[in-house]
Amino acid sequence: MNPIARLRPIYRDDDAIVIIDQTRLPHELRSLRVSDLAAVCEAIVTMRVRGAPLIGVAAAFGVALAMREDASDAALAVALRTLEATRPTAVNLRWALARMRSALESLPPASRAARAIALADEMLDEDIACNRAIGEAGLALLQGLPARPLNIMTHCNAGALATAGLGTALAPIYLAHAAGVPLHVWVSETRPRNQGLLTAWELAQAGVPHTLIADNAAGLLMQQARVDVVIVGADRIAANGDVANKVGTYLKALAAQAHGVPFYVAAPSSTFDAQCARGEDIPIEERAPSELTEIAARRPGGESVQASLCPPLTAHNPAFDVTPARLVSGVITEQGVLPPGVMPK
Amino acid sequence: MNPIARLRPIYRDDDAIVIIDQTRLPHELRSLRVSDLAAVCEAIVTMRVRGAPLIGVAAAFGVALAMREDASDAALAVALRTLEATRPTAVNLRWALARMRSALESLPPASRAARAIALADEMLDEDIACNRAIGEAGLALLQGLPARPLNIMTHCNAGALATAGLGTALAPIYLAHAAGVPLHVWVSETRPRNQGLLTAWELAQAGVPHTLIADNAAGLLMQQARVDVVIVGADRIAANGDVANKVGTYLKALAAQAHGVPFYVAAPSSTFDAQCARGEDIPIEERAPSELTEIAARRPGGESVQASLCPPLTAHNPAFDVTPARLVSGVITEQGVLPPGVMPK
Repeated sequence: MNPIARLRPIYRDDDAIVIIDQTRLPHELRSLRVSDLAAVCEAIVTMRVRGAPLIGVAAAFGVALAMREDASDAALAVALRTLEATRPTAVNLRWALARMRSALESLPPASRAARAIALADEMLDEDIACNRAIGEAGLALLQGLPARPLNIMTHCNAGALATAGLGTALAPIYLAHAAGVPLHVWVSETRPRNQGLLTAWELAQAGVPHTLIADNAAGLLMQQARVDVVIVGADRIAANGDVANKVGTYLKALAAQAHGVPFYVAAPSSTFDAQCARGEDIPIEERAPSELTEIAARRPGGESVQASLCPPLTAHNPAFDVTPARLVSGVITEQGVLPPGVMPK
Repeated sequence: MNPIARLRPIYRDDDAIVIIDQTRLPHELRSLRVSDLAAVCEAIVTMRVRGAPLIGVAAAFGVALAMREDASDAALAVALRTLEATRPTAVNLRWALARMRSALESLPPASRAARAIALADEMLDEDIACNRAIGEAGLALLQGLPARPLNIMTHCNAGALATAGLGTALAPIYLAHAAGVPLHVWVSETRPRNQGLLTAWELAQAGVPHTLIADNAAGLLMQQARVDVVIVGADRIAANGDVANKVGTYLKALAAQAHGVPFYVAAPSSTFDAQCARGEDIPIEERAPSELTEIAARRPGGESVQASLCPPLTAHNPAFDVTPARLVSGVITEQGVLPPGVMPK
């Protein structure tokens, strides 16, 4: 059995949820028991829990945990609003909250807690099944590409750690590896949060051959014809097919186009946002400049510098960018591979 | 007076040279006295001294220091060969060594030491003058661009720290700032060695407004029309105009082209290599994987991890990439701005 399928980045344990604290990986695999709304919000904001589909599931549990304490209309509104404010770009969060809202609002408060937890459980199970279906749609696609070993480039972490199951972009890779397709994954570091290290860690657990590269190296590798296909995840897909994903995705898409390398996005249908006409309408989260500047506050030896020559560094830290639909070869969903601009049913 | 003009990343002090140890910046501004060939080679290999033009000057002094100890034919051959082997991509190193060779080979050994030191001194002075001329050619170009403030993106460090003088890519910026042109510089981090921090440090010394960004953010900023021009340095320019520069340059060039942003390269004529027909012929240095993987060996707190969950990470670390001539708007040289593919006189 694929070790990744046992990873469980989120699961319910009686009256709480247990998550993997992803800010400690790859150094420590530490689980964290989260039992109230505030703790769920903190985990999402600080990226202990991250990845668009996983954020959606975590948010559903956040509502359920809130309803256990207070299931009044006011408490429901607060829970929905607080969770919605945690991160702006991934639409799965909004999708999960909308589902919770529509299921709970019409219920009497006394019935809300039980329904909320049941629905969150259901959404977790759905995500696992959805990942599997994405994996199967992507497997057929990878099997159809002629290169062996197949060199696949990915960005950020759209794997098991970003979902409740096998992942989105990595699901086809896990299934292809299990099916005996010789393959190798180029894992880009993904500054400034280095989620490439999460991807490398996951792939190592599953025994999938991979190599870490600087984000900067993506163009050279395509130039050298060492990339056969790119697969990335998505945080939101607009109605016209434009894709918001981790910052740096767009540069890889441009390079893929320049070298005729197919560029696929893997995402569940909950990542599509029919309300968003075009990529320009997707809000781009700006995160703390310290995510970038803390590297400057460390000496090469590893100690951090208290007083130093460095003047305060000004940094700008957008967390996502938008890849226009014209650069996307297709979107691998649980409903199959869709051409860019086609919405799932 | 521009504080950068007083920085002196390399100078001769009697029988030795003094360099700034750039691996300690921006934490410490520490000078290092280097008095023999082995120490010069070590400084180049470990990037205490870096930047194509500065490596050229340092190599010339390396030959001069070697000649002080032993000016025999054999010692000259060893010095040239050892220095040439330090780093493969920047052609300025080869250019400087070829100049030393042709000046010294025909001299009797007894005259070599004096001639070598005089020629190295001359090359240092020439580089300072050359930087100034590049700055002036680039200044005219920047003054001709309409946006105010002018948003300039650069990559890596092609500033004072990469040369003996004002820098290459940064020289026009320093002169434009001094001339009162309102401007702002997007400084990309330049993983894995983070030379963007050197650029930020230099720009801060000179009071030039700037903002640090992740390399990944370059595409988004162009998409958002927040970049008016890109200026980068170069390590080697082939006869057809293809440009080798720090890895990641090519991705910025692709994004610049996609958004109609002019993309300039600034380099002295010693960076042109008439022997290299095309970019594919330029050797690309591969550096130690540890430059990438050491980030994984650190906990968020800063301590390094002795034993951890991390399996040994495999990494690939090419230090340069090649930007095809078709993506280059022009090359800012000491002889003026040349169209790509035109060699300087």
